[in-house]
Amino acid sequence: MSQQRHGSTPGEPGAVPAFPDLPEATVARLPEYLRALHNLGEAGADTVSSEGLAAAAGVNSAKLRKDLSHLGSYGTRGVGYDVALLIEQIEFVLGLDQRRAVGLVGIGNLGHALAGYDGFVSRGFKIVALFDADPDKVGERIHGLTVRHIDELGKVASEENVAIGVIATPAGAAQAVADELVAAGVTSILNFAPCVLSVPPGVDVRKVDLAIELQILSFHEHRKASLTALPGGRSATGAGNQEAVGS
Amino acid sequence: MSQQRHGSTPGEPGAVPAFPDLPEATVARLPEYLRALHNLGEAGADTVSSEGLAAAAGVNSAKLRKDLSHLGSYGTRGVGYDVALLIEQIEFVLGLDQRRAVGLVGIGNLGHALAGYDGFVSRGFKIVALFDADPDKVGERIHGLTVRHIDELGKVASEENVAIGVIATPAGAAQAVADELVAAGVTSILNFAPCVLSVPPGVDVRKVDLAIELQILSFHEHRKASLTALPGGRSATGAGNQEAVGS
Repeated sequence: MSQQRHGSTPGEPGAVPAFPDLPEATVARLPEYLRALHNLGEAGADTVSSEGLAAAAGVNSAKLRKDLSHLGSYGTRGVGYDVALLIEQIEFVLGLDQRRAVGLVGIGNLGHALAGYDGFVSRGFKIVALFDADPDKVGERIHGLTVRHIDELGKVASEENVAIGVIATPAGAAQAVADELVAAGVTSILNFAPCVLSVPPGVDVRKVDLAIELQILSFHEHRKASLTALPGGRSATGAGNQEAVGS
Repeated sequence: MSQQRHGSTPGEPGAVPAFPDLPEATVARLPEYLRALHNLGEAGADTVSSEGLAAAAGVNSAKLRKDLSHLGSYGTRGVGYDVALLIEQIEFVLGLDQRRAVGLVGIGNLGHALAGYDGFVSRGFKIVALFDADPDKVGERIHGLTVRHIDELGKVASEENVAIGVIATPAGAAQAVADELVAAGVTSILNFAPCVLSVPPGVDVRKVDLAIELQILSFHEHRKASLTALPGGRSATGAGNQEAVGS
């Protein structure tokens, strides 16, 4: 993607003030739109209506139009959005035109799953280093990378320009790992350990807690059961709820 | 937890209308509060201020008070919230007083990680069945369960009263698995496959897409870099952002 093309026309990314204050929920939906657009593009579509894109991304079309208006992207009446242009605009805002280096700490089952996850590479990320504290794991080869000892984290994170640190350790180890990552200059952390990390200002943390997702589903199960149980209550076949994590 | 204790006093769960229309973002934060409360309880605290609980859960205290007010829980001025009572109230609303059976489909690295995840059992869930389409995986024993062939999914999901289905298959297989789960009467699905599932009304889907989390962090990396690059712009050490997935 060429930077040259930006900023030439109103409505293209360059015309958007350098970091519009996007709502966090909008940021969380942009990757969904991007994935849907890639699928549409691969299927041969040049343009897409807001309704068509909204359906493909699993959101309502009013929300989609509002989200895209934050990027200065309004589509063309009667035509819709240009698929290739909108892909560029979203990739630009998300910073996906630069491939970001990821360091992964904690090589248990989850770490193995993350290290082998094809979705990272295809969507702008490259895992460049793996770390574990267990001497039995150090030296193991996974997808072309050798697991290093956690003591090397600071040195390697600097050498490899790690932009994003992923923590897949037990909860008890996560804060110390976060401190090491921050000390090495990493300012974005994806945390799979079930704990709240304390980080200095300027460091972004996103937390994925798998049990929390199940608890949220449990709420909906409980709600549906109580609706069914109510005398004359609504049945459990009310509107379904498809909620993307992070939105 | 005894149902007897509910409904006796205003402000206890029984006094809350049977399924208050909780905002989805509030539902997503309740498990965070619950975890923080368990930690506080284990550390010996009987009561906690809204500020203390907010800090432990990584949210701001105004948001926390508003969330808890939806449950009819306001705390006591000068004392704060009763830790044990608030745990009961949240567990009641989330339906965690009933242990829910989970069926897991797709036993790759991620499936292995999920099957062995201690956090599920300790937080009210029990994986009761594992499924895969690969004959080489069928019969494998993992944490006391035997992997079954996907063809048995419908039968086993009914027999074992599976309440929540977890899909950890490749994207191409996910929709067919979701259809099978729905046909077996499962109305809550946690989807790790990178695709939007089509489900009938009354079925709740939560999606976890690990690459999307990285793309959201990429946005923040990009934003921070652009702030640093602006002439006279703010440095990259602005307020940090700790966002729990699902909030």
